[in-house]
Amino acid sequence: VVLSWFRRRRQAPDAPRLTPRSEQRASARVELAELTPSLESYLGHAAYLQLTFFEMLARSLTVAPTIAGKEVLSRVASRTLEKHHGLVDELRGLDLDVEATMEPHAGDLDRFRQLVRGQDWYEALISCYVAVGFLDDFFVQLGSGLGGDAGRRAVQLLAADSGADELAELVRAGTSDNERLAWRLAMWGRRLIGDTMLVARGAVDLHDMTRRSAEERIEPVFTELIAAHTRRMDGLGLTP
Amino acid sequence: VVLSWFRRRRQAPDAPRLTPRSEQRASARVELAELTPSLESYLGHAAYLQLTFFEMLARSLTVAPTIAGKEVLSRVASRTLEKHHGLVDELRGLDLDVEATMEPHAGDLDRFRQLVRGQDWYEALISCYVAVGFLDDFFVQLGSGLGGDAGRRAVQLLAADSGADELAELVRAGTSDNERLAWRLAMWGRRLIGDTMLVARGAVDLHDMTRRSAEERIEPVFTELIAAHTRRMDGLGLTP
Repeated sequence: VVLSWFRRRRQAPDAPRLTPRSEQRASARVELAELTPSLESYLGHAAYLQLTFFEMLARSLTVAPTIAGKEVLSRVASRTLEKHHGLVDELRGLDLDVEATMEPHAGDLDRFRQLVRGQDWYEALISCYVAVGFLDDFFVQLGSGLGGDAGRRAVQLLAADSGADELAELVRAGTSDNERLAWRLAMWGRRLIGDTMLVARGAVDLHDMTRRSAEERIEPVFTELIAAHTRRMDGLGLTP
Repeated sequence: VVLSWFRRRRQAPDAPRLTPRSEQRASARVELAELTPSLESYLGHAAYLQLTFFEMLARSLTVAPTIAGKEVLSRVASRTLEKHHGLVDELRGLDLDVEATMEPHAGDLDRFRQLVRGQDWYEALISCYVAVGFLDDFFVQLGSGLGGDAGRRAVQLLAADSGADELAELVRAGTSDNERLAWRLAMWGRRLIGDTMLVARGAVDLHDMTRRSAEERIEPVFTELIAAHTRRMDGLGLTP
């Protein structure tokens, strides 16, 4: 029952809500805006992140057991590659060195990709689903502190759907009549969230804030993103 | 000196040419038109072939030692994925089952991908360069026997450049001051051509022709494509 507090939180009786969800989200964005890194760092990190997603999806495509699975993954991979190229275009438009801006983020993201590689196709697929869902959301919120047209365009690009529903459909096709697999993937999904949150944490800039006051700002955002993650896993029927 | 006849042929003194290159090419197309498979088989084969190229390029991207190398490969991978999706759209437009039309070609192409996987990044890169160059050319010529708009659009799509020059630049950057690597890659390039020609051969339809008369038709096309392959390898400086 590691991390079962995800579940407990959801099962708690609904407390009266003081603020509608949209306002909660808006306030989380404001918190995170104070931790937004420079435009250069943001774009470089986000661009390498999309490339990392692409590599994860392409590997899942190669190990996919069916052509139908490959087709779905090819479409999602294509969308992450479009995001990557769009962000690279923004870097070029700012006359920044594309490789140099991505380089500082490559080591952590390459390690992340190795950590969430998974033992088989389904685990690889869940990794794509969880990482893309969580980190696209996070970067969109983190980008709220960016000024200027390039920043706005980057956030808009990242907010576009990469095809999570199609990935979910692939997972459900395998787990709907296989409880053992569903259980294993639920465990895998919970393990992933720690590594995924570390990537998110690595993208914030403390500026002149203390780590403690930064944590206080990140906490409500993570709470919200973990709730969204839990909803996504629930949507897959993966909550043993 | 296995396969050194590639080289000998090129070094022979120029015989007077009776026909200019463009006419030679045109006549080769006519030969191949008699071996063109059905539109359904052609589209299914070409679509899975582009997906195979994509998988080869995506793996090369993942093992690339530099971000600059990843960037180049991401662009080429994106173009092969566009070709794949374009061909899938043609299959859909004809109300054909996309997976079922690709399925008969998957086994051979998956095996091909394993065979040309290579021991390191450079070998993987040469495999992409050789396979994309040779087989895109071949499928364009094989498509000359297709009638109808869908066939014409498919051939036009396949004829578009996937980015061979950018791949070549990556190879040259590594081999220009490394003769040992250049020699090893030249050997690898020659080994590849056999497996690559088998893929091409697997795409023709004998119709009611004998295998012998089919061979007679294929031979001049292969001679031309091998000459193009040799020019490409020469362009890389890979002809020890």
